[in-house]
Amino acid sequence: MANELPTGPKGVTLLFGEFANKDYIYTYIGNIIYVESGIQSLFIMENSFWGRMLFINNNLQFTERDEFIYHEALVHVPVQSAPEGKIKKVLICGGGDFGASRELLKYPQIEEVIIVDIDSNIPKLVKKYFPGLLPENPEDPRLKLVVADAYEMVKKFLEEKKSFDLVVIDTTDPDISETGFTQELSHALFSEEFHRMLYELCPEGVIVQQCGTPFTMKNIMVETYKTFCKVYPKEEVYCYRANVPSFGGDNAYIMRCPWKNPEEPKWQELPNTYYYSHEVHRASFGLPKFWREELKV
Amino acid sequence: MANELPTGPKGVTLLFGEFANKDYIYTYIGNIIYVESGIQSLFIMENSFWGRMLFINNNLQFTERDEFIYHEALVHVPVQSAPEGKIKKVLICGGGDFGASRELLKYPQIEEVIIVDIDSNIPKLVKKYFPGLLPENPEDPRLKLVVADAYEMVKKFLEEKKSFDLVVIDTTDPDISETGFTQELSHALFSEEFHRMLYELCPEGVIVQQCGTPFTMKNIMVETYKTFCKVYPKEEVYCYRANVPSFGGDNAYIMRCPWKNPEEPKWQELPNTYYYSHEVHRASFGLPKFWREELKV
Repeated sequence: MANELPTGPKGVTLLFGEFANKDYIYTYIGNIIYVESGIQSLFIMENSFWGRMLFINNNLQFTERDEFIYHEALVHVPVQSAPEGKIKKVLICGGGDFGASRELLKYPQIEEVIIVDIDSNIPKLVKKYFPGLLPENPEDPRLKLVVADAYEMVKKFLEEKKSFDLVVIDTTDPDISETGFTQELSHALFSEEFHRMLYELCPEGVIVQQCGTPFTMKNIMVETYKTFCKVYPKEEVYCYRANVPSFGGDNAYIMRCPWKNPEEPKWQELPNTYYYSHEVHRASFGLPKFWREELKV
Repeated sequence: MANELPTGPKGVTLLFGEFANKDYIYTYIGNIIYVESGIQSLFIMENSFWGRMLFINNNLQFTERDEFIYHEALVHVPVQSAPEGKIKKVLICGGGDFGASRELLKYPQIEEVIIVDIDSNIPKLVKKYFPGLLPENPEDPRLKLVVADAYEMVKKFLEEKKSFDLVVIDTTDPDISETGFTQELSHALFSEEFHRMLYELCPEGVIVQQCGTPFTMKNIMVETYKTFCKVYPKEEVYCYRANVPSFGGDNAYIMRCPWKNPEEPKWQELPNTYYYSHEVHRASFGLPKFWREELKV
């Protein structure tokens, strides 16, 4: 029987390798759904465990299976850190995937959500391939999408004397370290100059920025924390975290919140969240000792 | 110049694939350090990011880079949940890698730590290849290592009328689900029968069991929680978590603690921990909403 053919799957298997670093690779077996090279390289694959996955410039942006954790932590922690009803007008810098807006629009008290994303392909792709990221009512009149560079748009909003109660910076990871990869479009949205403009645009509101996964990548968290502490009053700057399994560890978020005790959630709990609760809100601010050491800056 | 040879590394590169499931693989580039097929298959590799990594039966047991998180959470949360000084005699079922004992022996108040591990190869390998896991004083007279099946040893301890203040169950992930992989040696240490014996052995003490990473593996957490709730008073059963990046998500721990408010740490903070602090102790008990839903049993 030595000549019998092996059983099991036949043919070529596509292996997708995502490099956490040069010697550690997340490998997925799956199908290519979509590939596009526009202002950013976009790539969608489908995997039996994670569902559909969006890669921007070859970095995983989100998976269908666990994006809810990333987006709920990004939005509900800052909203609920402010007194109930105080968040009415929200600006999302980046966030063209609609995930952050989906969470914001769950609050009837929020009156206006503006997404400013530089890449017109992202909203198009999400509408077609990731309908789960769209707001419950995709035609919600409170939602406005602007395709523009958020840096330039914030300048324009300042000229127009617009203001916001919450700014959510929901972008790809930037290249901060000298030894990093290609510089990302998001780079400018991590700068001191950008935050000085946001402080003017949102002087009494909350500002939150996603800061990647400190354990496996260059230390965006520490750099962003330093920038926040330069621009905003240091006692109003906080770090919190959420475990997004497909990111390979806890994701860090840096927040400026002028209200006292952001660790204590202030709004009613929503029934339609799957990660976020008041319990997890409080726990998000409890950081590992080695994070706390890194944030002693 | 079309005939020029490509630059960069040459020769064969070893790729180590660890299957999180059939379509999602953690891939490491590295060197083989040690391979052994005894009572369990053991394999050590070295990777530039994770350092040395121990695989038992082809599953990652720990990496040099983040084992401190797993072991500090496993030990300091249960110890500090009891009133200061109440934990004097500790039994570790499994734990032949010494990591849990290293953490326990940091408390001068702890008088006796007995490790009972079925596999004599593990302590030998750790002494040679992972000296960082050994207690500060490897000859600490408070520490005793017994090579035996913990299930049988607990029976014997009961006959001898021995008792403990804390039992730590630090094993490989068992096979609980019908669709799981090979049944692990640890299987019996997750059983109701074993816990009934532990309850006798440790009637007024703390019992903690590591329960794997719920997001990416079969649901050991829920099954173990059910077992604890059957054996121990339900109001004394708790779940907490710690993010161990190399495990691919938050690791779950189930604990029986007869003392009130285990969420509040009771002992002095130790200077020589790197993950654990009172801050992270409190946060460990704050679970994501989707965990809490699964634990409604």
